[in-house]
Amino acid sequence: MTEYLSSLAKGLEPYVPGEQPGDGDYIKLNTNESPYPPSPKVQETIRKMADGSLRLYPDPSSGVLIKAASAYHGVPEEMIFAGNGSDEVLAFAFAAFYAGKKVVFPKVTYSFYPVYCGLFNAGYSQLPMVEKLGMDLDGMAGCGCGVVFPNPNAPTGELAGLEWVERIAASNPGNVVLVDEAYIDFGGESSARLTGKYENLLVVQTMSKSRALAGMRIGLAFGSEKLIDGLKRVRDSFNSYPLNRLSQYAGAAALEDDAYYKDMCGKIIRTREKSFGELERLGFEFIRSSSNFILASHPEVPAAKIYQVLKGNNILVRYFAKEPLQNHIRITVGTDGQMKILFDRLEKIIGGC
Amino acid sequence: MTEYLSSLAKGLEPYVPGEQPGDGDYIKLNTNESPYPPSPKVQETIRKMADGSLRLYPDPSSGVLIKAASAYHGVPEEMIFAGNGSDEVLAFAFAAFYAGKKVVFPKVTYSFYPVYCGLFNAGYSQLPMVEKLGMDLDGMAGCGCGVVFPNPNAPTGELAGLEWVERIAASNPGNVVLVDEAYIDFGGESSARLTGKYENLLVVQTMSKSRALAGMRIGLAFGSEKLIDGLKRVRDSFNSYPLNRLSQYAGAAALEDDAYYKDMCGKIIRTREKSFGELERLGFEFIRSSSNFILASHPEVPAAKIYQVLKGNNILVRYFAKEPLQNHIRITVGTDGQMKILFDRLEKIIGGC
Repeated sequence: MTEYLSSLAKGLEPYVPGEQPGDGDYIKLNTNESPYPPSPKVQETIRKMADGSLRLYPDPSSGVLIKAASAYHGVPEEMIFAGNGSDEVLAFAFAAFYAGKKVVFPKVTYSFYPVYCGLFNAGYSQLPMVEKLGMDLDGMAGCGCGVVFPNPNAPTGELAGLEWVERIAASNPGNVVLVDEAYIDFGGESSARLTGKYENLLVVQTMSKSRALAGMRIGLAFGSEKLIDGLKRVRDSFNSYPLNRLSQYAGAAALEDDAYYKDMCGKIIRTREKSFGELERLGFEFIRSSSNFILASHPEVPAAKIYQVLKGNNILVRYFAKEPLQNHIRITVGTDGQMKILFDRLEKIIGGC
Repeated sequence: MTEYLSSLAKGLEPYVPGEQPGDGDYIKLNTNESPYPPSPKVQETIRKMADGSLRLYPDPSSGVLIKAASAYHGVPEEMIFAGNGSDEVLAFAFAAFYAGKKVVFPKVTYSFYPVYCGLFNAGYSQLPMVEKLGMDLDGMAGCGCGVVFPNPNAPTGELAGLEWVERIAASNPGNVVLVDEAYIDFGGESSARLTGKYENLLVVQTMSKSRALAGMRIGLAFGSEKLIDGLKRVRDSFNSYPLNRLSQYAGAAALEDDAYYKDMCGKIIRTREKSFGELERLGFEFIRSSSNFILASHPEVPAAKIYQVLKGNNILVRYFAKEPLQNHIRITVGTDGQMKILFDRLEKIIGGC
C-alpha cells in the first residue's frame, strides 16, 4: 500500500471504533448508544421529509438545525456550528485551532484526540491522571496552550463542574479550550452558555447519545463568532455540505421534543444508579460515572475474560487493552431488562461458572 | 478571528458553492442537481428505515451500499469506498495520496481541487487549457506526478474517452490518477472497471447528480485495494462513521432501481440536446457538453448581466467571475418546462428587453 501513500497518510494511527456487528445479534453495550429509540416525532419528521426534495443539496449552513439549537440552548445562531457527527466537528476544530500548535488533553480520554493531532500536525501532551483515573484539571488551568477534555470524561465518566470549565477557559487566554460534551446530558450542566463569556471556549455536543440518533450523525459546536468562523473556514475547505437534509430536520425535531428526551435520559440515569449497586454486590471496582457508561474492573477476574465470556453469550461491552486501562471494561447503560441479563451473566462469570 | 486560527486555517481559501436559496423560490439551474425526484423506491426505503434503529451507529464500512455498488459496477467490494458525498471522498484522496507531493489538474476545472491542496499541503500545477477550453490530456499523460481531472470536465462538460484514461493512468506509474466522474452518467462511459487493470487509478462518483440524491450526500470511489486502504486510513483518522444509516440504504436502493435512473438520465440528455439548438438560435457560444450543464457566453450581452436579470426573474444559473471564465454562465439542464421558461427569458434579454 505504502508506495502510493503520502507521508501524512503513512504516519497516521487511525482510531479503532467499538465493534459494530449486524443489527440485532447482540445486547449491544459497547458503543454508548441509547437503548431507546429516538423520539417518534423525529422518526415522523424523517418520513415526511423523505420526498422529492432530496434531489436538492442541503442547506450548507444547516439553518433549520442551528435555529432549533439556538432556541433550545439560548445561544445566538451565529455562535453555533453543525457537522456530520461530533467527530467531524472535532476534526475541524483540531485543524482550525491546533494544527501546527500545541494542545493538552488527559492521558485517559477519548482516543480520537491524538489521531486528529496526527492528521493535522498538532503537537500534544497527555496529562497524567491524578488520584487514580481523575483528570488533572489543575494542570489544564493556565497551561498556556490549547486544551481539550470531555465533560464528563470518557471512558471514566468523571464530571468537572462548570467552575472548572470557567477556570480553565479564563486561565488560557488566546488559546482555544474545547469541552467535548458528548455525554453531558447524563448528569452534568452544559457550558454552552458560557461561550458568551469566554471567547476562547468551544463546546462540542452530539445527538448520538442522549438524543438516540447515532445513526444520523449530528454534531454541534457552540462558541464565539471568531471560533465558529474558524470552523466554517475549515468546513468550506473540506466539504461544503457536511450534513444531509434528513439529519438537519431530524436534529431540529429532536431538540423540539424535549419531554421525550428528558424522560429517556431520566430512565438511563436511574438504570445507571441501580447498576452501581449491582456492580458493588459483585465486587467490581468502578467509577460512579456521570455518563451513560460505567468503567469497571474486577480484582479477581481479568477484564479480557469477562469481555470474551460476555461476547460468547451475545453481550457486547468494550474492552480496553491499553495501559493504564488494560484491565477494564466499559459497559454502556442499557435498559433495565438488558442490564438484568448482563448482571445475571456477570454473576456467573464472577462465581466461576 | 485570526488570533485563534492555526496557520493552516489562516492560509485556506475556502471553496464557494453555488447559491442555495430556500426551497421553491427559484427555477434552480445553478448547482447541477437533477430536476427530477429520486426514485420512488429510494424514498420508500428511507421511510421504511426511519425507525428505532436510528439509535445505533451506522455500519462504518457502509456495507449495504458497497455491496450494491459492487453488483452494479462489477467491481469487487474491497475495491470500493463510500463517503459523505464525493467532496469528502476527494478530500480523503488528497490527504492520502497528494499531501506533501505534487499533483496536476486542468486550469479550468472543479475549483475545490486547489482548496484540498491547501488543506493537506499538496503542491499543484494547473495545466493551461488547449484549443480554447479543452483539457491538456497530453500534458497529463506521463507528467510523472499525481493527476486529477473530472470526466466530463466541469464546468465545460468536455468528455475524455476511456483510451485517454488508460493512457494517463499507464503513463504515470507510482502516482495516483484520480478521475472524478461526478457527471459521467450524462454521456460517458465509466472507467470504474479499469481500476482492475491500473492499480494507480482511482475513480470517484457521486449520487448527487444522476441519481438525484444531492440531499443525501453519497460519494463512492473505485480503485485497487492499495488505494481503497489508503482512503480508509484517512477516514478512520477523521470520522469513523462518515455515512449515516439512511444514506447507506438510500444509495443501495438507488443503484437497484436502474430503470428509473436510466429513464431520468435519458430525459436530461434529450433536454440538453434540444437546449443546444435554443442556445444556437439565440447566438450563444457554448460547448456541446456531455454533462447535465452547459457552459455558455454571448458575444453581445455580458454574462454578469444575463445572470442578474435571470435572477431578478427567479431563475438561478451559475455565473463565473474569474478568468478565464469571466464572461460565462453555466446552466444546469432542467426539465423541458423549466428550459422553456429560461429560453423565453433569455430571448428577451438578448433582444434587449
